[in-house]
Amino acid sequence: MKLYNYFRSSASYRVRIALALKGLPYEYVSVHLAKGEHRQAEYAALSADGLVPLLELPDGTRLSQSLAIMEYLDEQHPASALLPADALSRSRVRALAQSIACEIHPLNNLRVLKYLVHEMKAEEEAKNTWYRHWVRTGLEAFERQLAQQPASTFCWGDAPSLADCCLVPQIYNAERFDTPLQGLPRTMAAYEACMALPAFQAAQPSACPDAAP
Amino acid sequence: MKLYNYFRSSASYRVRIALALKGLPYEYVSVHLAKGEHRQAEYAALSADGLVPLLELPDGTRLSQSLAIMEYLDEQHPASALLPADALSRSRVRALAQSIACEIHPLNNLRVLKYLVHEMKAEEEAKNTWYRHWVRTGLEAFERQLAQQPASTFCWGDAPSLADCCLVPQIYNAERFDTPLQGLPRTMAAYEACMALPAFQAAQPSACPDAAP
Repeated sequence: MKLYNYFRSSASYRVRIALALKGLPYEYVSVHLAKGEHRQAEYAALSADGLVPLLELPDGTRLSQSLAIMEYLDEQHPASALLPADALSRSRVRALAQSIACEIHPLNNLRVLKYLVHEMKAEEEAKNTWYRHWVRTGLEAFERQLAQQPASTFCWGDAPSLADCCLVPQIYNAERFDTPLQGLPRTMAAYEACMALPAFQAAQPSACPDAAP
Repeated sequence: MKLYNYFRSSASYRVRIALALKGLPYEYVSVHLAKGEHRQAEYAALSADGLVPLLELPDGTRLSQSLAIMEYLDEQHPASALLPADALSRSRVRALAQSIACEIHPLNNLRVLKYLVHEMKAEEEAKNTWYRHWVRTGLEAFERQLAQQPASTFCWGDAPSLADCCLVPQIYNAERFDTPLQGLPRTMAAYEACMALPAFQAAQPSACPDAAP
């Protein structure tokens, strides 16, 4: 398999974690978002939406959208399951993952930040306040969800799930933008538990071939 | 079942469609977002994230996040399946749904528009331009995805899926904000095919008990 991705892309990072948790090898293909490589003809020929990540299967089939890719990987490679076995728990884990993927991350994409600066003429500080506002608001809602659940090592239960694959990149980004992370005990405990695992270490941006020095 | 929702909420509308497609009866509970009812104590006691929709099962269990709710309904009530039977097709349908739920809709939520106006001091026209920009950009990417697929009546194949449950509310919103919809032949054909079905008619905002006159 080939993963078209970018070291700092949060959605790319999610899929790298899933691949690492399942021990699936892949070729890392860098699409440098900050240099605009995703908008060039070469990538447009591969990707209908011009986004990363894009997973190319051995037969050439290409899959987009990080959550859909991870669900596919989980169906095809059930070991180290990313979703619990029972339907209600599965719904909880998906909801946690979507609380990040649908409520926080879309507002803080590189293209959204660029639009704020270039089209809305937002100052650097207003842009950063926007960023931190949505991350903090979203993580507080995430924490309230965890607080209603039974005790767990990770976001759900005692093994990392789809929710952890989404949480870790979001915390990484939060820290880059100096978002306050106090008062989120369950969330940060899950994050710490993840980062103690080799799979999460191997997938992190600083370990990527295209990482900025 | 009880569905806590709001007639104009795009994510609520998705779940109403899914319930209607499966012929599942439910009690409609209005949470009036424009009046701020989702931020009041009564709703906060029910919902950890303060968002709609929220589906309450007969035993009192409450599920959040529209995509997670629809996947749960599809697992528990397999008739009128929202996802195809094979893994690759399932991945495509999920990716289409997420192209709307993760790339378009989060940028145009009521709370985001309010932040633009109140915190970023965006003028009405700049706010509407923002709205139309993300909807149009997202729908063009959606159309490119459909254009790469085999011919189909709906977004995928000849029956409505999770992707159609997301597309129809997005088009409804696009029209409310006068977003140009020309040049999207596959997308609009799928939309029209959906709106010809009684389930989509029954779920639409104007048919809701809390619809504005």
